[in-house]
Formats: sequence, structure tokens, C-alpha cells
Amino acid sequence: MKELVERIRQEGKNLGNGILKVDSFVNHQVDPALMNRCGQELARRFAHVGATKVLTAEISGIAPALLTALPLGLPVVYARKTKPITMPNQVYLTLAPSHTKGRMIELIISPEHLREGDRVLIIDDFLATGATILGLVRLAQTAGAVIVGIGTLIEKTFEGGRDLLATVGVPIESLAVITSMEAGQIVFAEA
Amino acid sequence: MKELVERIRQEGKNLGNGILKVDSFVNHQVDPALMNRCGQELARRFAHVGATKVLTAEISGIAPALLTALPLGLPVVYARKTKPITMPNQVYLTLAPSHTKGRMIELIISPEHLREGDRVLIIDDFLATGATILGLVRLAQTAGAVIVGIGTLIEKTFEGGRDLLATVGVPIESLAVITSMEAGQIVFAEA
Repeated sequence: MKELVERIRQEGKNLGNGILKVDSFVNHQVDPALMNRCGQELARRFAHVGATKVLTAEISGIAPALLTALPLGLPVVYARKTKPITMPNQVYLTLAPSHTKGRMIELIISPEHLREGDRVLIIDDFLATGATILGLVRLAQTAGAVIVGIGTLIEKTFEGGRDLLATVGVPIESLAVITSMEAGQIVFAEA
Repeated sequence: MKELVERIRQEGKNLGNGILKVDSFVNHQVDPALMNRCGQELARRFAHVGATKVLTAEISGIAPALLTALPLGLPVVYARKTKPITMPNQVYLTLAPSHTKGRMIELIISPEHLREGDRVLIIDDFLATGATILGLVRLAQTAGAVIVGIGTLIEKTFEGGRDLLATVGVPIESLAVITSMEAGQIVFAEA
């Protein structure tokens, strides 16, 4: 998606070690108009998969998932990383390694909101190692739901997430694809 | 806002101790269409205040803040509760007591995204004790910004947040106002 690629070129910063700083429009400050167009584009690409629910992980997945779910007319569920007191004691929980935190994080979903028969479209901000998204896949499958697609704003192909997720056997779409961040550069795939 | 009140009547659960469970449409599963109408209504109520930025706190403030900022054409900033590695070392940080967590939480904003001259509209899901929102007020004022309004989806008047925030001297709007949760009831203010 040309607009997102251009915005990353203008404002994204390569901090080294594969870390891309996009906190002026994606994950601290958010540009709602850009995020809305990204959500509409993801909704367009997944219009055919017959999803019944959009699933993401807090925190930075919430904005793109919400604005993908809105045009699709679907509810969105975000996996929590700590169990709120409003959640039942019996939950779906999995552990996933966090690339940026250097430790395992918990991903928790209430059985009230993910069920057998749900057809789940997973949306997140980044596709990097794929570990968080694979955690969401495990949670959904444990609940008896079927995964029907995986969409992200920004993919870093050099971290291998797409290969890890290939076993899920569903369409994977990313709106901006970065192939290398060597030597301070940010190199995008040809559109 | 009648639609939100009706939805709370239908799906909200009084868990006791003033805790309202609305995780089927507000803060675990989100109904994007309802949230969009709530955001549009908050945007309408604050159209006159001349805001330049919408400010909220992760996690459950993100959805209402994003969908209020979208029709207003403004960026939204969400205060982080842990400092991401993409944030500079010098930040604005304040502590606020968390009602639901029973401990102090950190609220952190990068000086890159909140500045002198910003006119800040604070949006959150709940107005309860007002402690989180007051933390956001302190952060914004430390950054030299001016608060121009405070809007929430659901207010629990019996927890006193509106009185605490009266010193800020700005309009406070809530879309659903709950006056009592005694004896398992959920009592709404007259519209």
C-alpha cells in the first residue's frame, strides 16, 4: 500500500537490530485517517474469506484490527496480556516470546468471546518473527475456531514470520513489506 | 447516549464492588459499529473546543479515542504503561493508582508527541475515580499542553471522578451515566 510505504519512508526510523520506530503514526501516536485507510484495504483483501470475527493482541494491534473490523461489520477481540478482574477464572492462555521485550508474554482470551464455529481473521501491526500471531492461532484453535486469514500493516521478511505461519495454510497479507534493515537502511519489496 | 445505555442494560454485568463487566462490547471484545457511533457522538460534543490532539491511556481507552479522533481529523496519542524500546530515554512519566489492579501504574508519554501549544482532548472508556484521567492531565500539563475537554463512554458517578476533575475546569462528557450499582442493580441517570 503506497501511502503506508511512503509514510514509513518519511517518518520511520531504523533503530538497529531490526527495530523499526513508527511511533509517530502506528503505536504511540496514531494517525486515525491513515489507519482507517489501512483497515479498509485489509478489509478489501479479506472480504472473500468469510470471517466472523477479527482477533488481535493488545496493545498495538487494537487500532488496525478495529478499523479492519469496522468495514467488515465484524466484532473484534483483543487478547489480553494480563487477566482483568472482569474475566472468568477459566480462560484460554498461551505463552509467546516477545521480540521487543526479551521475555515470554501471556496471551489470554475469555472463552465467552471465542468459540467453536468462529472463523477468525487475525490482524496485527507487525509481522516479524510471527511468534505473537502464532500464539493467537493456537488460542483460536484451542477454542475450536478456524483461522481464515492473517493481515498486518508492516512485514519484516528477514525475520521469517511468513515461513513460520505457512503451516497455518491461510492467506497472509501485509500492506508494507520490508526486506532489509541492514546498515541503517529501510528497503521495501517491489510493489 | 441511548444506544450505549441500552447495550449496558442488555450485556453489562454488575460484579459487585462497583465493577461493571462490559467486556463483550467495550474492553475485550469490541463492537466497532457501536464504538464508531460513540466516537462520533463524543466528536460532536467536543467539536467546539478547538482540540489539536486526542489523548488516552492504553489499553481500553484506545478504541474510543481512535474513533473520536477520526471524525475530528486529529492524531491520537495513547500513554504507555511500560516504556517501549522505541521510546527515547527522556520521557514524561507519572504514577496513578489503578482501581482495578490495586496498585500504582505508570503512564508514559514521549516528549516527541505531546508539546507546548497542543490543545488536548482526553478520551477514555471509564470515568470512575478519575485517577487515570488526572494522571493524563498532569502529563499533558507537564508537557506544556492545555487540556480542553474530557470525554468518556461510561461514568460511575458514585466513585467521585467528576468532582476530582472539576479543578481542571474543562467540559466533561460521558455517554452513559451510572449513579448506583448497589445491591446488584445498575441504575442510570435520567437522560
